[in-house]
Amino acid sequence: MNKWLLLLTCSIFTTSAFTQEQSLRELYAKPQHEWPTIISSKDVPAAPLKPLKAKPFKQSDEIIALGEKLFNDTRLSRDNTVSCASCHESRLAFTDRRKLAVGIDGQVGTRNTQAIIGVDHWQTFFWDGRAKTAAQQALMPIENPIEMGSSVELVLNKVNSAEDYKSPIFNAFGKEALNKELLALALVAFERTFDIPESLFTRFIDKAQTNPSEAVALLDDQQLEGLHLFRTKARCMTCHEGALLSDNEFHVTGLHFYGRKLQDLGRFEATQDPADIGKFRTPSLLALQQSTPWMHHGGFQSLLGIVNFYNAGGARPKPSKKFKDDPNYPQTTELLHKLALSKDEKNALIAFLETL
Amino acid sequence: MNKWLLLLTCSIFTTSAFTQEQSLRELYAKPQHEWPTIISSKDVPAAPLKPLKAKPFKQSDEIIALGEKLFNDTRLSRDNTVSCASCHESRLAFTDRRKLAVGIDGQVGTRNTQAIIGVDHWQTFFWDGRAKTAAQQALMPIENPIEMGSSVELVLNKVNSAEDYKSPIFNAFGKEALNKELLALALVAFERTFDIPESLFTRFIDKAQTNPSEAVALLDDQQLEGLHLFRTKARCMTCHEGALLSDNEFHVTGLHFYGRKLQDLGRFEATQDPADIGKFRTPSLLALQQSTPWMHHGGFQSLLGIVNFYNAGGARPKPSKKFKDDPNYPQTTELLHKLALSKDEKNALIAFLETL
Repeated sequence: MNKWLLLLTCSIFTTSAFTQEQSLRELYAKPQHEWPTIISSKDVPAAPLKPLKAKPFKQSDEIIALGEKLFNDTRLSRDNTVSCASCHESRLAFTDRRKLAVGIDGQVGTRNTQAIIGVDHWQTFFWDGRAKTAAQQALMPIENPIEMGSSVELVLNKVNSAEDYKSPIFNAFGKEALNKELLALALVAFERTFDIPESLFTRFIDKAQTNPSEAVALLDDQQLEGLHLFRTKARCMTCHEGALLSDNEFHVTGLHFYGRKLQDLGRFEATQDPADIGKFRTPSLLALQQSTPWMHHGGFQSLLGIVNFYNAGGARPKPSKKFKDDPNYPQTTELLHKLALSKDEKNALIAFLETL
Repeated sequence: MNKWLLLLTCSIFTTSAFTQEQSLRELYAKPQHEWPTIISSKDVPAAPLKPLKAKPFKQSDEIIALGEKLFNDTRLSRDNTVSCASCHESRLAFTDRRKLAVGIDGQVGTRNTQAIIGVDHWQTFFWDGRAKTAAQQALMPIENPIEMGSSVELVLNKVNSAEDYKSPIFNAFGKEALNKELLALALVAFERTFDIPESLFTRFIDKAQTNPSEAVALLDDQQLEGLHLFRTKARCMTCHEGALLSDNEFHVTGLHFYGRKLQDLGRFEATQDPADIGKFRTPSLLALQQSTPWMHHGGFQSLLGIVNFYNAGGARPKPSKKFKDDPNYPQTTELLHKLALSKDEKNALIAFLETL
């Protein structure tokens, strides 16, 4: 190639790359409603990104303190070995960094521990949404035979007769004893105080509310491109939208292992509706790094693995001969598409996910 | 095939299988010194299986109680989020069921948490043996930047000035304050009280001391065959011998990932001796189920995976071109051989390992 032509070509490439980044920076330096339109696979518009805030109503410090004591108390389990905090560790965004949760007698559960983030914002709880409120959720692990293996009644007996609970219970509620409702209320009061860990994303999205140009300066070019892809081409906000980075809905992404050893019927377990087989609740992506490994089965521990999975349009397992005519064989959601992300785009998306 | 010949053949097979099991049962119903000779790859005889007992000397209840309080105290870490118990959970034979340990700020360590079993019996501590005594070991995580990230001095300041430690320290030692030695002593005093979880194997090996025929009746045919393989053809006792099911030595089994992303130089990190590159301390196999996932990198979570690994004679990675002439490239120990275990033999060995 002619030397001048080569120089010219390089210069065009450089300029064009420069221009693209410039324009992304310019675009994202504007107020959020002027950012590039979110691309999602849903018909309804996705909720914009925003900071996650607890609802203003807060319980008294004494109730929160009682909740904290209960949350960390192994007496909530049958054999006094497992507390809420055994699986929900504050230093790990209230997860445990295990593939699958572990209950009493070292029993391994069937699902990955979910982070406790934004309890005020969920419409359901658990991967299958079997609890409708945080208070319902809080009591369920107590009675789950492979988690705490106890009963609420037994826990109330233990706690109400324990010397070290006398003052905390009285200080919180002006009563001698907890009942089921107050036990749940105290636990949830404590959970409502959990802040998501500060991250580059939390700083960015806080700042973006008031000063978008300062906000965008916090992101490097690759992270900014990743944010843009997250909002557009990669269609992440189809399901991961709003302050919670979740649509509060249930989807089949194809990891149900229907008819196989790792089978998990997901939301069907809560509803018994065959249409819910293989659906799982969209988790928040906040505190993503702290909540590794990911997915309901904890089977992913690399962001590249996740990005490749969605780049391929999720999993679309083919029923074996045995299940060929099974009407319940789960169909992977049509919201997922092949994305055709380039290697650089994947890396940029990962760079953004790492800011969460 | 002639019907009578078929029947005859079946009958021969049945009889021979029956005879083999019968004779294993008969053999193992005898006192242990009459059991089939242990086959190992070492020149020295392997130490026989026996119950693991703490040495008789025990510290006072007050010292043990102080040790327990310290062991469970997150104030031992810089940011008050990590205690010894964060990674060493009593319900999991003092492991954490994570692939790799997790310290302050959610930092992921480089190695799998080891069970705390038989502290009296080890000649070294950690996968690389960098501590020579349990007391040395106990203080090291405090100062490790990705574990507790603190310093012994800082911990002593915190603990000695804490109101809730005043009585426990005085009751234990008749002093106002702990020093480094007493801190370690209390922690180890508590660790010395850890019993390995009761299991079919612990019941079997206890009973085998006094009543071998009752002991062998505890095992089913497959478990018994597995025990026999463990002691003979599978050569497990080459390294997993005696009460601890460990030879207290360091070996290269081939999982060092030398020159690659997961590289772990093992014992070399403690000794700086190139001959120690890629060597890891033989772990105990007691409480095997509770301490999953296994190996220094936590990369194995199925016993079949482990059995296949040793059946193949361990890993013998070939140096890439870059390391072809590297004199430090670790050689996998010659103690490991291909074992040629049949599928049934593998299953029997696994059935035995599951009793541990």
